[in-house]
Amino acid sequence: MIVSERMYGLGSARSAIRELFEYGKKRAAEVGAENIYDYSIGNPAVPSPDSVNETIVELLRTEPSVQVHGYTSAQGDADARQAIAEDLNRRFGTHFHKDNFYITCGAAAALTISLGALVVPECDEVIAIAPFFAEYAVFAGNAGAKFLMVPPDTKNFQIDMEALADMIGPKTRAVMINSPNNPTGAVYSEETIKRLAALLTEKSREFGHAIVILSDEPYRELVYDGLKVPFITKYYPNTIVCYSYSKSLSLPGERIGYVLVPDEMEDHDRVYAAVCGAGRSLGFVCAPSLMQKVVGKVTGQTSDISWYDNNRRILASGLKEIGYEFGEPQGAFYLFLKALEDDTEAFCERAKSFDLLLVSGVSFGCPGWVRLAYCVPTEMIKKSLPVFKKLYDSYK
Amino acid sequence: MIVSERMYGLGSARSAIRELFEYGKKRAAEVGAENIYDYSIGNPAVPSPDSVNETIVELLRTEPSVQVHGYTSAQGDADARQAIAEDLNRRFGTHFHKDNFYITCGAAAALTISLGALVVPECDEVIAIAPFFAEYAVFAGNAGAKFLMVPPDTKNFQIDMEALADMIGPKTRAVMINSPNNPTGAVYSEETIKRLAALLTEKSREFGHAIVILSDEPYRELVYDGLKVPFITKYYPNTIVCYSYSKSLSLPGERIGYVLVPDEMEDHDRVYAAVCGAGRSLGFVCAPSLMQKVVGKVTGQTSDISWYDNNRRILASGLKEIGYEFGEPQGAFYLFLKALEDDTEAFCERAKSFDLLLVSGVSFGCPGWVRLAYCVPTEMIKKSLPVFKKLYDSYK
Repeated sequence: MIVSERMYGLGSARSAIRELFEYGKKRAAEVGAENIYDYSIGNPAVPSPDSVNETIVELLRTEPSVQVHGYTSAQGDADARQAIAEDLNRRFGTHFHKDNFYITCGAAAALTISLGALVVPECDEVIAIAPFFAEYAVFAGNAGAKFLMVPPDTKNFQIDMEALADMIGPKTRAVMINSPNNPTGAVYSEETIKRLAALLTEKSREFGHAIVILSDEPYRELVYDGLKVPFITKYYPNTIVCYSYSKSLSLPGERIGYVLVPDEMEDHDRVYAAVCGAGRSLGFVCAPSLMQKVVGKVTGQTSDISWYDNNRRILASGLKEIGYEFGEPQGAFYLFLKALEDDTEAFCERAKSFDLLLVSGVSFGCPGWVRLAYCVPTEMIKKSLPVFKKLYDSYK
Repeated sequence: MIVSERMYGLGSARSAIRELFEYGKKRAAEVGAENIYDYSIGNPAVPSPDSVNETIVELLRTEPSVQVHGYTSAQGDADARQAIAEDLNRRFGTHFHKDNFYITCGAAAALTISLGALVVPECDEVIAIAPFFAEYAVFAGNAGAKFLMVPPDTKNFQIDMEALADMIGPKTRAVMINSPNNPTGAVYSEETIKRLAALLTEKSREFGHAIVILSDEPYRELVYDGLKVPFITKYYPNTIVCYSYSKSLSLPGERIGYVLVPDEMEDHDRVYAAVCGAGRSLGFVCAPSLMQKVVGKVTGQTSDISWYDNNRRILASGLKEIGYEFGEPQGAFYLFLKALEDDTEAFCERAKSFDLLLVSGVSFGCPGWVRLAYCVPTEMIKKSLPVFKKLYDSYK
């Protein structure tokens, strides 16, 4: 049977993260779950706010079945889109309205749809800033874009602007950013965003076409110490925001998010129409209707973020005391640790021999570093610290 | 701003059906909804069985939030897949198991994923049998396939096998079928399926590669008069089934369905892996988790189909009495009517002047015919019959 080689390759390649997770489950069965320190998976461990399930039950009680489970328009339920706009306007001083939004099956769909809308296949280039979520390369490939990667700034985990400037050329269609960042937990500062906006404005002029920022923001609300995440459309008009409620409302399985195309964007109507066309072409029809109505009612609320914050403090202070180096964990629920040897995979293997499951930075485009997802039970973190000490000492 | 011309075209092209539906709403505001006979939209009008909402509430009550709303594996919840397999085995005497299924965001996603898995872009051809759901061409285009169409058999609305045989060539990757059919309401007979299987077996041998049947089955359970819908995998092993619960459970907005790759299929593991890869590439991640668990509990149940059946009888006997010709409405909730003049659009326009909203068969690849969606209030059908009489008489 002839199949698409690209799709076969994507379907049969094992995900390193998923493999590590499966190993953890197997090992837990052998030695007990309490003796495994599994930092592999970025799965929200805090329940959704009660309002989510309460809203579901209320919608089922009050709305006719054919309405609550019926098709919405392809762009999404109009009331939900308006509620999302008003919540952002209230929190970020923006001026959005419902027709800036296209509700999607999560951020992954928002990205494939936006890339599909923007990219001229087999011609355009898309640039991501390492380290980045590995699926970006897959999604860019789906749209037929050539995928380029700016090497990581391992000093501050901001953006190496000079490297980015060198990489932008006449075929550059979009630059993908992700802040708060997976896997580093860094948040791009206002200065970083301003410098990025200035660079892209200059380069857009130089090459005679708008270069778009594709801002992937599933962790927007997961920030600590009162830090503010700059809202990108306020700094650079040619920005498409891809959002998901997976992390903020702990709804990763429900696949609900949106594409935001601001009015300020050049040829807004053309871009928005292309977003609608890409959603249609990829087979999305509409985002899940019940969940659209739910997020319309609870948008702006979050799960209990303080729980992640507490984990973050315990983990960061413990690792620091031992002597580890890591990026400052400002947001999301990741801590990015410097490996204790040059061979990242070997470091992960040695950690694994101590039952510490860490994800190599290689697949994120950042060798020499490893990701810890601290959306785990707090007890596990506390118990793991003496084990991290043993791992550290084993390199002395 | 440069955007993808294909996606812009798809997003800005107006859907004739949607436009007619909007016209109907506008006209209803002018003359009263009771004076508009809107047969335009194939939206289930019967509520979901009570078990759907009861199961949702029960799941929310008994399962932890992070579990019920959490990621499932990309293939879908294992228990739900096993339940789907067992239900089909019970009803159709098949021998499926959970690893034959990949749960999707509805049938549209099942089709784009299956086409993505099978098609070698810019090389392969996909054939559909007219009349067909117009989005097939869009979905085939998304996978990079050339889309060909077998002219309609307007005598019986089965398959013109000779025309299909002539069309199959070395580049044919798949033949898309849809029974019960949108827009005709016809069901392919067992004889049709046997002849199709024999033809594709012969052609697969002739061209040295398997030609796949892609069977789109959202209306599988909507059949009347005790008619049996042949289960295609039992007649032709190289079949991929694309299913949706949109119609059987009246859940069109929830986007829940599946791809079924039977064990009997040549290189089953390769095809299934390519399906997983295509889902990943297109940005699906997993199907909505709560709804996966719901269909796992209620699969095999249906909304009250007798309601559609009653509408069908009243409409068919009324139109027959007036003198209209139409295909035998055996399934789905569509009746396909012969236009009373050669110019299909002109016929639709004249019907519209009587406030009868009918969809031209042109976009389904079948000019000279129009579609009536009878998933509407029964009263509307009764009141519309004298108006159909007036339309008929206007052609005397």
